[in-house]
Amino acid sequence: MSWDGKMNIIGIIEKKRDKKPLTADEIRFFINGSCDGSIPDYQISALLMAVCINGMSDEETAVLTDCMAKSGDSIDLGFIDGIKVDKHSSGGVGDKVTLAAAPMAAACGLTVAKMSGRGLGFSGGTIDKLESIPNFRTSLTEDEFKTFIKRDGIALMSQTKNVAPADKKLYALRDVTGTVPSIPLIASSIMSKKLACGSDAVVLDVKCGSGAFMKTFDMAVKLAVAMESIGRHNGREVTALITNMDQPLGNAVGNALEVIEAAETLKGNGPPDFTELCYITASFMLLAGRKATSLAQAREMLETSVRSGAALKKFRKFIENQGGDSAVADNTDLLPKAKVIYPLFSPESGVITAINGETVGSAALTVKAGRMTKNDVIDHSAGFVLKAKAGDKVNKGDILAEIHASSEALAEAAAEQLLTAYRFGGAYEKKPMLLAYVDKEGIHHD
Amino acid sequence: MSWDGKMNIIGIIEKKRDKKPLTADEIRFFINGSCDGSIPDYQISALLMAVCINGMSDEETAVLTDCMAKSGDSIDLGFIDGIKVDKHSSGGVGDKVTLAAAPMAAACGLTVAKMSGRGLGFSGGTIDKLESIPNFRTSLTEDEFKTFIKRDGIALMSQTKNVAPADKKLYALRDVTGTVPSIPLIASSIMSKKLACGSDAVVLDVKCGSGAFMKTFDMAVKLAVAMESIGRHNGREVTALITNMDQPLGNAVGNALEVIEAAETLKGNGPPDFTELCYITASFMLLAGRKATSLAQAREMLETSVRSGAALKKFRKFIENQGGDSAVADNTDLLPKAKVIYPLFSPESGVITAINGETVGSAALTVKAGRMTKNDVIDHSAGFVLKAKAGDKVNKGDILAEIHASSEALAEAAAEQLLTAYRFGGAYEKKPMLLAYVDKEGIHHD
Repeated sequence: MSWDGKMNIIGIIEKKRDKKPLTADEIRFFINGSCDGSIPDYQISALLMAVCINGMSDEETAVLTDCMAKSGDSIDLGFIDGIKVDKHSSGGVGDKVTLAAAPMAAACGLTVAKMSGRGLGFSGGTIDKLESIPNFRTSLTEDEFKTFIKRDGIALMSQTKNVAPADKKLYALRDVTGTVPSIPLIASSIMSKKLACGSDAVVLDVKCGSGAFMKTFDMAVKLAVAMESIGRHNGREVTALITNMDQPLGNAVGNALEVIEAAETLKGNGPPDFTELCYITASFMLLAGRKATSLAQAREMLETSVRSGAALKKFRKFIENQGGDSAVADNTDLLPKAKVIYPLFSPESGVITAINGETVGSAALTVKAGRMTKNDVIDHSAGFVLKAKAGDKVNKGDILAEIHASSEALAEAAAEQLLTAYRFGGAYEKKPMLLAYVDKEGIHHD
Repeated sequence: MSWDGKMNIIGIIEKKRDKKPLTADEIRFFINGSCDGSIPDYQISALLMAVCINGMSDEETAVLTDCMAKSGDSIDLGFIDGIKVDKHSSGGVGDKVTLAAAPMAAACGLTVAKMSGRGLGFSGGTIDKLESIPNFRTSLTEDEFKTFIKRDGIALMSQTKNVAPADKKLYALRDVTGTVPSIPLIASSIMSKKLACGSDAVVLDVKCGSGAFMKTFDMAVKLAVAMESIGRHNGREVTALITNMDQPLGNAVGNALEVIEAAETLKGNGPPDFTELCYITASFMLLAGRKATSLAQAREMLETSVRSGAALKKFRKFIENQGGDSAVADNTDLLPKAKVIYPLFSPESGVITAINGETVGSAALTVKAGRMTKNDVIDHSAGFVLKAKAGDKVNKGDILAEIHASSEALAEAAAEQLLTAYRFGGAYEKKPMLLAYVDKEGIHHD
């Protein structure tokens, strides 16, 4: 339906309802109208449902993402020489990869200029983790940010600009209208923020497994392919890793505990799964930034940076620049400590076959390691240290985990929840960390 | 998604998004929440789009309709003995069937107690047509309505009660969210009002053709089947006629002009197509009301009522009861007369192959024979009398139609529009008025 040749939202909704592709002008009209309030929520949600059921082509998704990216402020990283590489994870309990991979990559000559958001829900945000370091500032001025980047090749600041408001608008509606699980909508939501943030290349970590948003490998591949396509259509080089997430990553869950684990990893003493993912992610970052010509070379450079202490030194410099006490890297007493450390004993003997990430995340909220609403205050000292992971054999009465909390009562409540995350007995099939990756040449099975 | 076992609208939307059937409780929750405002418009429209794309089963549609019917007041026709038969048309330009078929059927012993709405858009409402008769009252008290029904077997009043407010709510949203063309939603919208109006049987006239809402025979059959199914699931006997509508019905378009045509038809002098449809509709009404045992017998009774003058007499009584001057049936000077009668000449010679109903309806709005918004005032005298119909051969300069209007300017503007409704030349295939009908035994091809 079109009156006087003018574009109208009902006609656009009808096209998508009838499985017809939308033009770039129609998508732009939709995004602009959603942001300026001229298209009411009930029309936005009708179109979102039509997209959710009938899909969008690669071309439509690329244009949608571009329009969303341009709906707000853009960040100009032009002051950095060479290829700017960003890194993003679809998130997961215990995911502190940025804390270790960024200093490693910076130690190998890559410039790491990162904007981050705060965490909401099950998985904490990088900003929250860093703020467990006393006096650490993530609110940098633009001048400070640029100075640290130019001098030391690493800085991380909390996002202050109005990045991709169209995404905020659509996401809020999707959340309450059953239109979240749509590959084009998920991919455009993630990539719109990446496009607005001005990097030339992006390494994405798409988590796959029972504890991740993408439950199956097929869905994870679809999302990875969609995001690579969006990047390519918009002149960005995207590598999308598909990584295994059938339990929390590493042993530490909770802000200060995760900082400690990141520091240990930079000393070469991290848990195997987390260490492996840091090397993998940073390797792809070095490759994307043309600091290495092969994954093998990148890996060698990164391992050397850890062995030589260069990565840890970069971590200390990063903390110092942003107001924190870099001694936390060696003296964990300088970080907030929980009043209570409460052991979770194994109720049975056998092999742990699964630790449900979502359940662990829920239990972490109980000890206030994360926030459910924007206004919740985080207890940076709280969280868990897992003493056994999937694949480990335990005996009844062995300690499965330590619960760090501000009171016995909170610890006990969390313990009860946490225990339900574990499955014992049966077969455990260990999967590699990197299941596959997608780049401009297609999908690579590892 | 369901918290604490409580029903929630997001979970309901997700089910329909994933093509799963909704339970009766879920549909009830949706309709109740839509009416009481607890479910916001953006969630209603998301679910409507999911229904529009993924459909609903017969059972779901029947429950939906029942919930919509029960969302407001019910009308109790218990004071009428025997089977109460309602009649409804999907509407069309020149459709004045009720004006003639109701007195015919009443003359044959059927009780015709009808509630009607006002017209909006292209096709006028029966109430508006009757109000062209000076002093005719459609706002009857309940007592008057009952008295006329009991004594004379016929009365028509404008709907005063709050019938199916859920339908009003959903329809308003569907209209602006691209979710109108869904068989379950169209069928439930029509039938919810029929269920609330308390009749035992309903004869529906589903118009089919270029000038109708259902453009193809297949779509018309689907709608007819859906409405019969809703009726059967809710204990009502439904006969859904599928009738041809490839041009305006009869010759008169416009309120007073249509009253005149109805009176002429009751005298046996009506246009063939309109006369035929009145006999067909009234025959099915007599059959549904058990006043005849076959369509042939019903037809014979109706033709006799016209020949004998009984039908016209019932028409006069009906007008008289409701305050009008029954002499209008014979003396058209008692009806409002247009200031200008303007001829539309044929611009070419040939066979008329089509007269587009929507275009005729638009032109009728130009002379103010109908209203575009609720507040528009209708000119009851305005309209058209078609002097040639599809299939007729005309010569250049012949009069195609008379335009009745309040000024030359309006008449000229309407003439220009009206002319675009005509197609000349090529083949014209005359179709029967009744294409098929659907009852509890299935579809009957005529």
